[in-house]
Amino acid sequence: MDKSFTVGLIGIGRIGKIHIENLLHRIPNVNLKLAADIKLDEDLKKWVKERGVTNLTDDPYEIFNDPEIEIVLICSPTDTHANFIQEAAKVKKQIFCEKPIDIEVNRIKKTLKIVEENGVKLMIGFNRRFDRNFKRIHELIVSGEIGTPQIVKITSRDPSPPPIDYIKVSGGIFLDMTIHDWDMARFQCHSDVEEVYATGAVLVDPKIGEAGDIDTAAAILKFKNGALGIIDNTRQAVYGYDQRVEVFGSKGCLIADNEATNTVRIYNAECTSVDKIPSFFMERYMNSYYSELKYFFDCIAKNGDPKPNGEDGLKNVLVALAAQKSLEENRPIKIADLKF
Amino acid sequence: MDKSFTVGLIGIGRIGKIHIENLLHRIPNVNLKLAADIKLDEDLKKWVKERGVTNLTDDPYEIFNDPEIEIVLICSPTDTHANFIQEAAKVKKQIFCEKPIDIEVNRIKKTLKIVEENGVKLMIGFNRRFDRNFKRIHELIVSGEIGTPQIVKITSRDPSPPPIDYIKVSGGIFLDMTIHDWDMARFQCHSDVEEVYATGAVLVDPKIGEAGDIDTAAAILKFKNGALGIIDNTRQAVYGYDQRVEVFGSKGCLIADNEATNTVRIYNAECTSVDKIPSFFMERYMNSYYSELKYFFDCIAKNGDPKPNGEDGLKNVLVALAAQKSLEENRPIKIADLKF
Amino acid sequence: MDKSFTVGLIGIGRIGKIHIENLLHRIPNVNLKLAADIKLDEDLKKWVKERGVTNLTDDPYEIFNDPEIEIVLICSPTDTHANFIQEAAKVKKQIFCEKPIDIEVNRIKKTLKIVEENGVKLMIGFNRRFDRNFKRIHELIVSGEIGTPQIVKITSRDPSPPPIDYIKVSGGIFLDMTIHDWDMARFQCHSDVEEVYATGAVLVDPKIGEAGDIDTAAAILKFKNGALGIIDNTRQAVYGYDQRVEVFGSKGCLIADNEATNTVRIYNAECTSVDKIPSFFMERYMNSYYSELKYFFDCIAKNGDPKPNGEDGLKNVLVALAAQKSLEENRPIKIADLKF
Amino acid sequence: MDKSFTVGLIGIGRIGKIHIENLLHRIPNVNLKLAADIKLDEDLKKWVKERGVTNLTDDPYEIFNDPEIEIVLICSPTDTHANFIQEAAKVKKQIFCEKPIDIEVNRIKKTLKIVEENGVKLMIGFNRRFDRNFKRIHELIVSGEIGTPQIVKITSRDPSPPPIDYIKVSGGIFLDMTIHDWDMARFQCHSDVEEVYATGAVLVDPKIGEAGDIDTAAAILKFKNGALGIIDNTRQAVYGYDQRVEVFGSKGCLIADNEATNTVRIYNAECTSVDKIPSFFMERYMNSYYSELKYFFDCIAKNGDPKPNGEDGLKNVLVALAAQKSLEENRPIKIADLKF
Repeated sequence: MDKSFTVGLIGIGRIGKIHIENLLHRIPNVNLKLAADIKLDEDLKKWVKERGVTNLTDDPYEIFNDPEIEIVLICSPTDTHANFIQEAAKVKKQIFCEKPIDIEVNRIKKTLKIVEENGVKLMIGFNRRFDRNFKRIHELIVSGEIGTPQIVKITSRDPSPPPIDYIKVSGGIFLDMTIHDWDMARFQCHSDVEEVYATGAVLVDPKIGEAGDIDTAAAILKFKNGALGIIDNTRQAVYGYDQRVEVFGSKGCLIADNEATNTVRIYNAECTSVDKIPSFFMERYMNSYYSELKYFFDCIAKNGDPKPNGEDGLKNVLVALAAQKSLEENRPIKIADLKF
Repeated sequence: MDKSFTVGLIGIGRIGKIHIENLLHRIPNVNLKLAADIKLDEDLKKWVKERGVTNLTDDPYEIFNDPEIEIVLICSPTDTHANFIQEAAKVKKQIFCEKPIDIEVNRIKKTLKIVEENGVKLMIGFNRRFDRNFKRIHELIVSGEIGTPQIVKITSRDPSPPPIDYIKVSGGIFLDMTIHDWDMARFQCHSDVEEVYATGAVLVDPKIGEAGDIDTAAAILKFKNGALGIIDNTRQAVYGYDQRVEVFGSKGCLIADNEATNTVRIYNAECTSVDKIPSFFMERYMNSYYSELKYFFDCIAKNGDPKPNGEDGLKNVLVALAAQKSLEENRPIKIADLKF
Repeated sequence: MDKSFTVGLIGIGRIGKIHIENLLHRIPNVNLKLAADIKLDEDLKKWVKERGVTNLTDDPYEIFNDPEIEIVLICSPTDTHANFIQEAAKVKKQIFCEKPIDIEVNRIKKTLKIVEENGVKLMIGFNRRFDRNFKRIHELIVSGEIGTPQIVKITSRDPSPPPIDYIKVSGGIFLDMTIHDWDMARFQCHSDVEEVYATGAVLVDPKIGEAGDIDTAAAILKFKNGALGIIDNTRQAVYGYDQRVEVFGSKGCLIADNEATNTVRIYNAECTSVDKIPSFFMERYMNSYYSELKYFFDCIAKNGDPKPNGEDGLKNVLVALAAQKSLEENRPIKIADLKF
Repeated sequence: MDKSFTVGLIGIGRIGKIHIENLLHRIPNVNLKLAADIKLDEDLKKWVKERGVTNLTDDPYEIFNDPEIEIVLICSPTDTHANFIQEAAKVKKQIFCEKPIDIEVNRIKKTLKIVEENGVKLMIGFNRRFDRNFKRIHELIVSGEIGTPQIVKITSRDPSPPPIDYIKVSGGIFLDMTIHDWDMARFQCHSDVEEVYATGAVLVDPKIGEAGDIDTAAAILKFKNGALGIIDNTRQAVYGYDQRVEVFGSKGCLIADNEATNTVRIYNAECTSVDKIPSFFMERYMNSYYSELKYFFDCIAKNGDPKPNGEDGLKNVLVALAAQKSLEENRPIKIADLKF
């Protein structure tokens, strides 16, 4: 990556901070010229300053208006994504945006149209594709190791539910949590979803049910290439953040287990044990955030097409909405039958 | 087990032979007085004789008519099970019968009624419950190790499909192959199935599709206790007989992996590898046949109620039929809505 | 194995009973004509009778004197082995004898000479060679999987020490316990031991030290082919019977881990665990006793040379004696320098 | 770590570069004021400049002479360590020095005396203590998880031998390669070595033998607390960098296996496999270099005593020299009997 880039970043929350650290220390030839957050409190100012980022603003438009900035990273709340993508595209900046683009299909479509019209690149931050294990599965499938994928099976369980107030505005488990799994299923199956049957239950916390959501879910996907997908979710796995992927194919099977906290086995008079698996996404996926950003800048440098792109972002939301409808009507839903 | 038993066995096929070996060598205090098979060819006679079984007949009714015989083991083809159970019950013999009882619900119900009226015990040979791993999961759930089961997940894949002629008369994958998994799901969830959504595809061999069946399947169960079940099947896993069970609960998760052929890891310049998993049920489940028979005779000796019993046999068939209907109509089916 | 054999067995202790069960039920074409034990109490008579062995004696010479008996299995205490082997050889019976032949080198040599002069076969019961894992390592080495063996590493730990009275007459840890490991090292290295350095400590129980023995040991072997061997022993591993073998070679490495009690992993809020490993040799090696006997009879049937043979028995004792001397003198000892 | 530090670093080779990256990006409150290397070529200048280190010199004494610099990191070749430590100590700078301090005992002793007289802290870079797995073992032992350590067992195998020219000046395998393992053994046993028996062979490359060294080694240690240590080394493990530690104790056993490259298991028609283990120390121990440096600065900030310290450095060299003598004389050597 010989070319160097001038970058602006919007939204300095949990994920924004991870990206800033990576931009500063691990991605070469990048100049983080300006960082923006509409809620610039003292803690945030201090955090940014300690890392040597000197230009800080509470107005994202300063980034769009700066002609030197070539690339925008959007890490602000979901409901701002579509607007910021559109603004960045209009001023011909390359865009990396956290998932999801939006939760309204028509708004996503409009946004993608603007991106296309302005000829800029847009990558969506489905970081799990860059986890060393899931990436390895993908590579092995591409190399033909297991023949044609026939069953994609994803276990995706959070360690504990978010606050009820978050649940209420989350868009529901299928848009908020399973969104990563729809993407992973499509990524590993190398095909798009044709139909989804999704169901669930409230087994973790009745308050989640009262908020109109479920906390335990299962779904079966039918892919266009004939393969089947199986996903299960829960908001509360007391043993840690359970993230596994399995792809069964005509010539074999690939199984990515959870990462280990260490390799030590403890043998004693009661049992043989190992330490708990990583507790949540900061532990498990920290390195995937770096890998995805590294890949994004490599793509931009080579004028390639970074993936997952806007179309992936749209497709994942469509599957989520079909799953939501399937849950409500207790029947399988075809993506093609969704109306907007 | 102080009491000794006089036993007759009907059907000396693959499974019948396993039971005979166990009766002769590993189950104490059992006298196998008479074995019956309607196709008594020379090979079979030789096989039986070599093992020291002296009384052999081609007429199962000799067993029913022998007043000394207290226990009958039925290992003949499925379509004879219901009739032989009825005959054995009428002459007050205790019964162990291979799965399934029958594939017609009304016939099963009639058979169970006769069993009940005659006050005899009936155990059905869902041997996988006695696999050391799945049995251990069951025990750990009973002991409260993982709290309340919320998701039961079964991977059940055969190494290669049976002949097409067998497929044609098998009753379909859900009755023929998944029947073990319906039972396992109920066994591990400690609850009955309320609703099932099942789907599938023909990905292994188009001839299976031409025969009116599928070779790859996925199903989601809803249990009466609120838990969810997830099952996937395929007729062809080239890497061996893939048999795994996972139960996720409010306080933890239990995962039974495949048995290993041995514990040797091979490190070389290319990779780290281990030998293939067991190739089919004879390798994987051989010991479970012994354990189930041992348990059955222990139950009889103590006048206990052996399980899985006739009711389990019926319930498993009901789930299979609901799954079949779900596949045909592409919608979830409630067990209670099935009509006969 | 078409040929059938008439067999006598001497010594119906713990191991003798295992062999009787295997002879009766799992080894075809074998007629156990007579079993002998000099201490025939009622319990033993009952045990034997229940298994259908009708001929029983307290005089081992009845076996030697019976011209029909072609094969003798010697499972009596160690100090009787040499004599019984000699007696059996003189009357031209094939011999399977439990390890060790004796603990005196000259007596072993004399015994082997008589065996040779009478042209009978003698196999010594180093059963661990027939463990599925260690056997697999041996096969993989033979097939060239890891090139030339360079380091053989054996972990061999008992769950708890035997009674002090047993320790006192055991001949010391190197003859009593490590004897299996000397054999395993030679078996896996495909070479003989040239020199041994052995040391140890009393860390488990001071009474073992008072009895003149050690309870914790480590040894380094130099093999004639240049390879190194490493063995560690302890009389007390509280987590179970720890039996592992590793062979490092020029093209790779083979590691046989302990057998698992089952494959279930338990994930909970504290850790991930599995059940303890097998508790002792009856659990771990039960099947190896069957495999070794099966192999012995196959060899006899084919007029082959069963191994480990008398020479192996002698060589293992020589290494043990060298180790004993090394411990006493705290220096490496060459086998060739031992004097008798 | 509120306090901030001004740091100088000497020696910008492979390890020096790792430390520079960590100082710049991952250790907070550190100002790397000056870096020195006596061979400042263009590549090196470019490398340093790209990372934003502006002050660079080819004269290490500029660092010693700069009164602002409080801490010196010594990463230059081994034969310069003792001198640089002495110089740094005399000007009252805190010192982190790569292992070993020196290979001559008297020189080490003199150096440590100067360190002591000047009241500065000295940490030696035995980074493996900070590997997440080995550190976890240490913690578990401290917490009493396995009672008293009785056997410490280390497997330490390089993927391929260094150039013969390096071998010739390396000081021999026990000082060059096993030095890490002597330290690990002492670290995990929580005791010092009393006696060592070491042996070896030339099995990898005869040129190593011609250079007066061995390439395959095994050693048994006796610790002052009565425990035994077992180490094996080879210069060439074709399957990767094999780094394992096992500690057996009165109440259990701890086994740290190799790190995995990823968690993906590949099941196919031939076998089940995983990717190779990490290829060498840059892959395996990268993070331990960060952790050790982080720990060092934390210690300095809190005015603690960082370990492993100079005394550890000395003790490890003493064990290495005893092992060397043991190899030459083929007998166990007591550390106390070494003469200088």
